[in-house]
Amino acid sequence: MAVVGAGRVGSAVANALVLLRVCDRVVIYDRDLALAEGEAWDIADTVPLLSEMEVTPAAGYADLGGCDVVVVTAGVTLGPGQSRLDLLGANADTIAGIVGELDRVCPGAVVVLVTNPVDVLTRIAIETSARPAHLILGCGTVLDGARLRQRLGELLDVERESVHAYVVGEHGDSSFPVWSSATVGAIRLEQFGLPEGRSWPQVKAELAAVTRQRGMSIHERKGFTSYGVAAAVARIVRAVARDEKRIFMVSVLAAKEYGIGPVVLGLPCVIGAAGVDRQLPLAMSAEEHQMLQHSAAILERAYQSLTAGSETAPGRRGG
Amino acid sequence: MAVVGAGRVGSAVANALVLLRVCDRVVIYDRDLALAEGEAWDIADTVPLLSEMEVTPAAGYADLGGCDVVVVTAGVTLGPGQSRLDLLGANADTIAGIVGELDRVCPGAVVVLVTNPVDVLTRIAIETSARPAHLILGCGTVLDGARLRQRLGELLDVERESVHAYVVGEHGDSSFPVWSSATVGAIRLEQFGLPEGRSWPQVKAELAAVTRQRGMSIHERKGFTSYGVAAAVARIVRAVARDEKRIFMVSVLAAKEYGIGPVVLGLPCVIGAAGVDRQLPLAMSAEEHQMLQHSAAILERAYQSLTAGSETAPGRRGG
Amino acid sequence: MAVVGAGRVGSAVANALVLLRVCDRVVIYDRDLALAEGEAWDIADTVPLLSEMEVTPAAGYADLGGCDVVVVTAGVTLGPGQSRLDLLGANADTIAGIVGELDRVCPGAVVVLVTNPVDVLTRIAIETSARPAHLILGCGTVLDGARLRQRLGELLDVERESVHAYVVGEHGDSSFPVWSSATVGAIRLEQFGLPEGRSWPQVKAELAAVTRQRGMSIHERKGFTSYGVAAAVARIVRAVARDEKRIFMVSVLAAKEYGIGPVVLGLPCVIGAAGVDRQLPLAMSAEEHQMLQHSAAILERAYQSLTAGSETAPGRRGG
Amino acid sequence: MAVVGAGRVGSAVANALVLLRVCDRVVIYDRDLALAEGEAWDIADTVPLLSEMEVTPAAGYADLGGCDVVVVTAGVTLGPGQSRLDLLGANADTIAGIVGELDRVCPGAVVVLVTNPVDVLTRIAIETSARPAHLILGCGTVLDGARLRQRLGELLDVERESVHAYVVGEHGDSSFPVWSSATVGAIRLEQFGLPEGRSWPQVKAELAAVTRQRGMSIHERKGFTSYGVAAAVARIVRAVARDEKRIFMVSVLAAKEYGIGPVVLGLPCVIGAAGVDRQLPLAMSAEEHQMLQHSAAILERAYQSLTAGSETAPGRRGG
Repeated sequence: MAVVGAGRVGSAVANALVLLRVCDRVVIYDRDLALAEGEAWDIADTVPLLSEMEVTPAAGYADLGGCDVVVVTAGVTLGPGQSRLDLLGANADTIAGIVGELDRVCPGAVVVLVTNPVDVLTRIAIETSARPAHLILGCGTVLDGARLRQRLGELLDVERESVHAYVVGEHGDSSFPVWSSATVGAIRLEQFGLPEGRSWPQVKAELAAVTRQRGMSIHERKGFTSYGVAAAVARIVRAVARDEKRIFMVSVLAAKEYGIGPVVLGLPCVIGAAGVDRQLPLAMSAEEHQMLQHSAAILERAYQSLTAGSETAPGRRGG
Repeated sequence: MAVVGAGRVGSAVANALVLLRVCDRVVIYDRDLALAEGEAWDIADTVPLLSEMEVTPAAGYADLGGCDVVVVTAGVTLGPGQSRLDLLGANADTIAGIVGELDRVCPGAVVVLVTNPVDVLTRIAIETSARPAHLILGCGTVLDGARLRQRLGELLDVERESVHAYVVGEHGDSSFPVWSSATVGAIRLEQFGLPEGRSWPQVKAELAAVTRQRGMSIHERKGFTSYGVAAAVARIVRAVARDEKRIFMVSVLAAKEYGIGPVVLGLPCVIGAAGVDRQLPLAMSAEEHQMLQHSAAILERAYQSLTAGSETAPGRRGG
Repeated sequence: MAVVGAGRVGSAVANALVLLRVCDRVVIYDRDLALAEGEAWDIADTVPLLSEMEVTPAAGYADLGGCDVVVVTAGVTLGPGQSRLDLLGANADTIAGIVGELDRVCPGAVVVLVTNPVDVLTRIAIETSARPAHLILGCGTVLDGARLRQRLGELLDVERESVHAYVVGEHGDSSFPVWSSATVGAIRLEQFGLPEGRSWPQVKAELAAVTRQRGMSIHERKGFTSYGVAAAVARIVRAVARDEKRIFMVSVLAAKEYGIGPVVLGLPCVIGAAGVDRQLPLAMSAEEHQMLQHSAAILERAYQSLTAGSETAPGRRGG
Repeated sequence: MAVVGAGRVGSAVANALVLLRVCDRVVIYDRDLALAEGEAWDIADTVPLLSEMEVTPAAGYADLGGCDVVVVTAGVTLGPGQSRLDLLGANADTIAGIVGELDRVCPGAVVVLVTNPVDVLTRIAIETSARPAHLILGCGTVLDGARLRQRLGELLDVERESVHAYVVGEHGDSSFPVWSSATVGAIRLEQFGLPEGRSWPQVKAELAAVTRQRGMSIHERKGFTSYGVAAAVARIVRAVARDEKRIFMVSVLAAKEYGIGPVVLGLPCVIGAAGVDRQLPLAMSAEEHQMLQHSAAILERAYQSLTAGSETAPGRRGG
């Protein structure tokens, strides 16, 4: 297993892989070797207290040679006065460069993208990489969906693992829950009684909003997010490493059935050793399908802005 | 945590509670103290290799005083030439006697019944116990449902935790899967593609049959069942011990909405520290509802045969 | 991973491997295929409630082909009126036969012997097998040592993982604790304060006796032992499967340094993917060395009695 | 469970408690409420992917009321141009203030100090707190010892859990391994064969140096340490929460037997629900005892410099 980028998110991902014992060996790569060393050694120090694992810094991409899964967290993060587009431009080059290196040293590995904007960057990675598309996926709306299920479980007083509700679309402001297919156990969501004084339309609106704003609320308070996304990535990586065939809402090239063109965004997929084992056909209401088209349009526009020839600033590490 | 009955099922339950680290302390009670000692000590020997727990034999019911959950496995099992009704008669007395003792020493504990026929005996326990009905539940169709999900997961090549399909009714020949509400992830079961050459009607019939016959197939081969039911019970006990609010198909007094009278059988419930936290309203197709009525009728007849005054043979330990 | 023999111990070992998630796949072989099926299916039923594993019966030895570790539990167990020697004779043939089959189908697997008398049978297996000696080991005094550490931990009120005391020698009446090298943490055992009124000579005698008699106490009460030995075996198997290089007191051909000839008995070894990675040189007091010689002499005599040409009864399954 | 201080170390500790499932509930307190919120929410986002836990920010000390264990990480960390003494002065006031608040809201909780210099600050905490001394401990040389065992295990090719070697003294430059009592399994360290070309004097010197410099090596590379110390603290907290009676080298008031006066430094203690359940008497060689005296003298001098009346700078958050 390898993590590219030893910034806040990259190191948090490596740490989560160790604490959750997802794998036996984690390699951390960063252009700044000393930083990769510092993080690898700090995390390696947790190992003697816990389990038998190995955490090592990589001196170069060649050290990622034997890896089955590579998590990419490198790239700039939003700074003051920077527009989202600057971010995209800079990171697109960074990601394309990294993917090129990975194609060289581990052409059969599953690549999990975390760098934002994750959906567009996953599309870039798929287009520039020589490896088959199913080996590339972004962390999509996995965390958004987890947040939604958590809140629904609390509200309905039922274990959140029994709550099956998906958040799909852009990992960003245009994501939305697919309420029409949500169930608890095998029971339709709306057959569930709500606490007195609450109604489903109100609850749905509230939960959709809270889920969408959560990341920003954290960003405003601590300046970045790291632990939550790291656990989400660790969960995806485990599904790949153990060939779990588990369903996640990863950033994936939308299936033709959705009728939204060749855009990459969060949709339900079966994740296993092959990366995206396959997409699952998610039925949506007319309203939901409109929201999906809206989300796709936003991502398409961002992608087109890129290829329209933006001059990109030189990338640097981040999360 | 306590287990009443140190037969094959009782000892397997205690062993599973230890290996799965469900609790810190297991007390094993049996009328035959030496047997309780033998099993408790044998299981206690696994502890030093694993975790910090305590496993002790109980010299009498008084030793079950502090227990939050009591699993009841005592009773006779099917012997040659014995009819099912003999079994019911003998075990009904045994269970009523045990429940009386438990009412005395741990009136607030959740009682989980495992002895067969579990649905009718759970009804007896509810009627004869002084404790509230929600504190009494049978292991119902938990294992049947787990078997079904496992096979569905294999067939559809998806993690079985993503398969949400319930088996309800009698823990026995009249149980049935509620196909109409089955989902995979949040996707309707029938929207799932099947392997070439298979059709849903055929698959459903096959899986229902295999699930129903599984216990008997094992019984024919090893003479009894123990490990499977023990793991199912350990899973239920964990939900109670950790107040998980997880959904299980336990033996429970059917809610009025089902319109099948005061019969006890496997139906979806939220299980937590209160035992049966609440029942969940499961929508069924007309055909499924007919199957539920059929299952209820069988159990009602068995129950009535009991109260009609069968002379019961003296009970003895079993699983 | 495979288990040969689907009797009480064999099935308990397979069940422990599953509940403790030691491996992904367990194959159960027994000459009685129906029994192997019954146990495999019963244990497989626990899987959907727990984890992603596979448990299957083997139709023949060929199905053990890909296994890295094979646990051998087949053989007769003590019946009424049978002498220990009858047992040895019958089981020696059984084990030699099984080892021959295993040499054919999985010549590189680590073979862990559990059938009693385990030390002599491990010697037979080493002598008759074509595989290198380090790939064959018996479960030795692993369980005895665990029992001792548990009791010492309780007495000294310290976590038993911090107690380092070994029981060595025959897995039987002549085993003994090596008190001279026992430590708690890095502190000599005897520097530890005892509860008021207890003295070390008295405590040592008592603990040695209790440890030695434990198995018999259980046997007298439940007629056999299964859960304790199963957990011990699962722990050894995990060390092999994960190449842990952990120290266990397995049945092994004693190193020359002990000066007791080519006898097999419980001595400290580093266990890893290679089976017995190496033996560790355990310093003993003069008295302890005498006890080791005594234990070795008993085992040598039993071994010689065998080769002296006992007519062996036809073996059958057992634990 | 509560963590005071939401800086890098504090948030890493809270995150480790969640990922390692040490407890059911973590409260994070910081003078900067928004920061506590940001970290608590980010970590809480990992929960839906993992386990049933609760992570909440505390609006004030009153929210720490029900906590059994409080980890204190607040305080300044070394900045450019700052001397170690400035750090001590500032943090001493901060810690005394926090301990006063904790005495008010959770007088029976075990307080685990992490802020550096941890030994002197633990002494301050013990002296200023109204709670019994056994309820206060510093994280001492726990991490140093873990690092040493890890390296010894690698060198000797044996599981590091079988390596029993302690690092004691100041958590800093004067710490040292107590080689005279080190064992592997129950075997004296020096009876262990070393790889060809290595000698014990050379190996010991090397390992002692590497262990001592490890923290600084990380600090030079990533600017601080967080993950390693967080895992060490989580391990200690687990021992308290589960009353494990496990041995750790925590910062504790040295027992009279050591003859080094009332100084606080890393020494072996049994840790359980009572915090420091008791100290263990560690035998040392003459040379080792001299090193202990040296370490104690350094810490005594630092402590005296404080009480000599240093004017302290205003404290602020850090790790």
